[in-house]
Amino acid sequence: MAPATEKRMTGVIAATFTPLTSEGEINLSVIGPYIDYLIEKQGVKIIFVNGTTGESMSLTVAERKALAEDWCHKAKGKMDQVVVHVGCMSLRDAQELARHASEIKADGIAVISPSFFKPCTAADLRAFLREVASAAPTVPFYYYHIPSITGVNVPVRDVLIDIEEIIPTFRGVKFSGSDLMDFGQCVSMGHTHWSAVYGVDEQLLAGLAMGANGVVGSTYNYVGSHVNKLLTAFENGDQLQARTIQFKLQELICFAIKIGFDLGMNKQLASEVSGLSLGPPRLPLIPCPQDRVASVVQKYRSLFQNC
Amino acid sequence: MAPATEKRMTGVIAATFTPLTSEGEINLSVIGPYIDYLIEKQGVKIIFVNGTTGESMSLTVAERKALAEDWCHKAKGKMDQVVVHVGCMSLRDAQELARHASEIKADGIAVISPSFFKPCTAADLRAFLREVASAAPTVPFYYYHIPSITGVNVPVRDVLIDIEEIIPTFRGVKFSGSDLMDFGQCVSMGHTHWSAVYGVDEQLLAGLAMGANGVVGSTYNYVGSHVNKLLTAFENGDQLQARTIQFKLQELICFAIKIGFDLGMNKQLASEVSGLSLGPPRLPLIPCPQDRVASVVQKYRSLFQNC
Amino acid sequence: MAPATEKRMTGVIAATFTPLTSEGEINLSVIGPYIDYLIEKQGVKIIFVNGTTGESMSLTVAERKALAEDWCHKAKGKMDQVVVHVGCMSLRDAQELARHASEIKADGIAVISPSFFKPCTAADLRAFLREVASAAPTVPFYYYHIPSITGVNVPVRDVLIDIEEIIPTFRGVKFSGSDLMDFGQCVSMGHTHWSAVYGVDEQLLAGLAMGANGVVGSTYNYVGSHVNKLLTAFENGDQLQARTIQFKLQELICFAIKIGFDLGMNKQLASEVSGLSLGPPRLPLIPCPQDRVASVVQKYRSLFQNC
Amino acid sequence: MAPATEKRMTGVIAATFTPLTSEGEINLSVIGPYIDYLIEKQGVKIIFVNGTTGESMSLTVAERKALAEDWCHKAKGKMDQVVVHVGCMSLRDAQELARHASEIKADGIAVISPSFFKPCTAADLRAFLREVASAAPTVPFYYYHIPSITGVNVPVRDVLIDIEEIIPTFRGVKFSGSDLMDFGQCVSMGHTHWSAVYGVDEQLLAGLAMGANGVVGSTYNYVGSHVNKLLTAFENGDQLQARTIQFKLQELICFAIKIGFDLGMNKQLASEVSGLSLGPPRLPLIPCPQDRVASVVQKYRSLFQNC
Repeated sequence: MAPATEKRMTGVIAATFTPLTSEGEINLSVIGPYIDYLIEKQGVKIIFVNGTTGESMSLTVAERKALAEDWCHKAKGKMDQVVVHVGCMSLRDAQELARHASEIKADGIAVISPSFFKPCTAADLRAFLREVASAAPTVPFYYYHIPSITGVNVPVRDVLIDIEEIIPTFRGVKFSGSDLMDFGQCVSMGHTHWSAVYGVDEQLLAGLAMGANGVVGSTYNYVGSHVNKLLTAFENGDQLQARTIQFKLQELICFAIKIGFDLGMNKQLASEVSGLSLGPPRLPLIPCPQDRVASVVQKYRSLFQNC
Repeated sequence: MAPATEKRMTGVIAATFTPLTSEGEINLSVIGPYIDYLIEKQGVKIIFVNGTTGESMSLTVAERKALAEDWCHKAKGKMDQVVVHVGCMSLRDAQELARHASEIKADGIAVISPSFFKPCTAADLRAFLREVASAAPTVPFYYYHIPSITGVNVPVRDVLIDIEEIIPTFRGVKFSGSDLMDFGQCVSMGHTHWSAVYGVDEQLLAGLAMGANGVVGSTYNYVGSHVNKLLTAFENGDQLQARTIQFKLQELICFAIKIGFDLGMNKQLASEVSGLSLGPPRLPLIPCPQDRVASVVQKYRSLFQNC
Repeated sequence: MAPATEKRMTGVIAATFTPLTSEGEINLSVIGPYIDYLIEKQGVKIIFVNGTTGESMSLTVAERKALAEDWCHKAKGKMDQVVVHVGCMSLRDAQELARHASEIKADGIAVISPSFFKPCTAADLRAFLREVASAAPTVPFYYYHIPSITGVNVPVRDVLIDIEEIIPTFRGVKFSGSDLMDFGQCVSMGHTHWSAVYGVDEQLLAGLAMGANGVVGSTYNYVGSHVNKLLTAFENGDQLQARTIQFKLQELICFAIKIGFDLGMNKQLASEVSGLSLGPPRLPLIPCPQDRVASVVQKYRSLFQNC
Repeated sequence: MAPATEKRMTGVIAATFTPLTSEGEINLSVIGPYIDYLIEKQGVKIIFVNGTTGESMSLTVAERKALAEDWCHKAKGKMDQVVVHVGCMSLRDAQELARHASEIKADGIAVISPSFFKPCTAADLRAFLREVASAAPTVPFYYYHIPSITGVNVPVRDVLIDIEEIIPTFRGVKFSGSDLMDFGQCVSMGHTHWSAVYGVDEQLLAGLAMGANGVVGSTYNYVGSHVNKLLTAFENGDQLQARTIQFKLQELICFAIKIGFDLGMNKQLASEVSGLSLGPPRLPLIPCPQDRVASVVQKYRSLFQNC
């Protein structure tokens, strides 16, 4: 049996969008082509499903199960790993999704901090994470840190201290925050069988400098192949090339921010680039006006398509 | 048939806690005595259930239904109104709860803004609220504004402009924010059949000065009778008496904040004062250490019990 | 000799703008007419000079002295009180201004918290305030709390505990914050010779409900006469009338915010209403475009001029 | 004559503390030994004086002049560059300090955004900076960005667009913020004669990855020699060595934060390590209790002294 260490998250990981029909129903028919697209066009072999990019908090528990099952089923033998996010505001819902992820043989589960009621201390957050992890006792477990959305700023290093004693399945952290001291302190803990993957696309190179094992984000749905090159350049000591790609991604994101970047625009940009019908986002997110989509697609093409 | 206006929220409204067993299961057996306690000891005749105080975001949809049903059933003929909060991160879950509230003949439903994905504009938020309201087209509808928790700071006055055109059942706002210009502008819209109830207990008198139709909060579970007196004093022009009661409530809350006020402490204080077994909160909230409970109970007694 | 208590701030207090020439030099020639205008047209008899409205932080120490001296000199025998703000980032500068205020016989001095380096605790802030106050040991002293600008959120109630033991000249607080629990707790300390004046114009009625001794703000330069009526209505128990005036002021401020309310627009509005040449603000503030000035002046006139 | 490009900031730059006597007076006698210490023990050849670390906002204009003059005079022939911070809340004070810096032949001036009144747009901030720069038309000019203290979050890339057209002396930015997309976009502007130096010590390696020309900070007063090694390792492609040093610095800062890191503690730590009498900080900052100083000094020694 392959040791757990071989299954930890590394490299370029795409946080997938949830395909919806134009009526807003989940659209499983897109998942197969989506997987092929990521592998063939973006060189992405690990996916993070039902996360923030996947609008999981706007889905029902039943929808999340149906999606997770389909992603895992169709990725089998193609993708290296499918990590399913099971975090919820309600611990009980999260536990149910964790059990389900175990049944469908997900390669890992990830849990975000609840954010309506916010844990005040690392101990409170660890207690919550432990209860979810214990519902799937054989599945690699990741903590998903994204303070800009959750408002939960508990230092991750405090969450990770001796964490395997309370969560034996712990395999790493998806760190989507800008505090690189905290991230560095997680990396420096010297885990040999965890992953610290960095999740802020616009400064991913900074995450690598701090020792990230990989990077995870939504833009890798359409710049994954370029970011693969960035990782290679970084490993080869070609800082100039790594920066050149990072700066292009920053320029795209800066441009998008100026015209109103949000998950709606992001999803539509991914649709346009991939040719997949990812559909609109769900309320409270709203679809991006067509002129802005055209504008950001043009910027994308000018930066990334002829290179 | 009584006109809708008779059913709007006014006076002192208690936001109820959700009774749990010591194992953390919902405990319906406490609901009957809880209703009697509020009526007899606190003079409270309108309740707001499954809200923030009720830890609704930590409950499953099934649990919320069971609770709502029991509150409505047992309050029938005793309470004047039971308003059920049905807001969720997921619109579909909120719609399901709205339909259910209609079936169980709740006197009103309230909806909080989703807060994981935050609506950016009043239009986005209104679109979300409309979709929930339309699932219960005969039930009085309230918008529940609590920016300190949701992080959604869309001015309520912008949400309310011509709102009855899109939500015919609209009956008011539970305004749990500190921006009294925004609250005042809501009041000044001159609604004759809405309610603007104010939800910041520690400055409720300010809400009254701005023209609130009533006040709603968690502390009214144990200071409801005093706050009823405050409202009477205010209506009678006895500002000094109104302030005296407000200052006592402020002193209690200040004291509690210094030793770590949160929903866990709040729930335990309510248990101690009422004699009801409300149980612990759910993760990510944690029970309050016993010495702090004793301390805040003592403060409560010194301020409120012999008067 | 009149006791100190007769000199505390009460009623409607105008925070004055600093008149500048079109070249940006301080323009003392406007101060005389400005004082007459406030008394005759707005019914204002107490002024707060060199505060936030007066752009004191954009002035040199020498300019602040020249202005303070001129305000005190020309107001003598006309105004009831001139309170001079002497707060600075540098304690030494603040002490120099406090000594100067004493020499020119200011009726009081006020000190804001330094905000570049922010005091962490009430003790640190008290130490700073004490050092300034001790430079003017016979002048009534006010603490000026405005957390939205300073970012200093130390509860004022903690600053005020036994404050006369360390600042014998303490006479009150200018509370320009929205935390009405904190304000209420200051009022409830039961000072008989301090003033707690409230400084958030758009919710001044809430401050009165909490027991404010007076109100202080920049809009009273042009709505002072109306706010005088509001205070009278409040004292007479005419809540409806008090609210009507408050709602108008809220409407003006809401309107201004939508088109970009800042001190530049505020100063220009005051110029237009008063007929005084207050001049432009100083960098980093910039003058308000003329079309926006016209727009806010029109709104002002529609709300306040024919009543 | 050496071209301006040779004088831009690069490498490891120490932001100096302002030496004070135990009575709180500026202590010029320490400046000579301080310069020698930085050169000999830390390998630092460029200093940034009267900045945040130097408590400039707590100094009078006269004190700042005396300090700047002494630093420039004593560093002559020893240090490569002395850059004097001249930013103030008041533009006029900043202009006076800029003129003075020119007279004393400072190698550069730097200006922070005013933070009491905050510029709303890049245009407003640029207008302020231009006015200061024009008072010293031959001195290399740097913009000093530190949003965590100023609260001014205008993207630096927007400030820098064609900045040489309005500030011909512009030579770079001291970027002390955590937004590495913004920093990267500044670097990617491709300046050949500016410097983009990064000022967040605990994540300096991330700044280097983004292409920083150098690093500037207060901790380089006592870890400058180690950070010099870090820069060399980074340039040589030895990421592991670079990270090892970064992680140690993070560990020191994390430790300090847990026991209350502020400028008072920082200054005392620098005194202990250097043996210089830097004295206490000024109010509103307070001296660090001796037990905490001992604790952080011990941590420093365990991390940095035997290597």
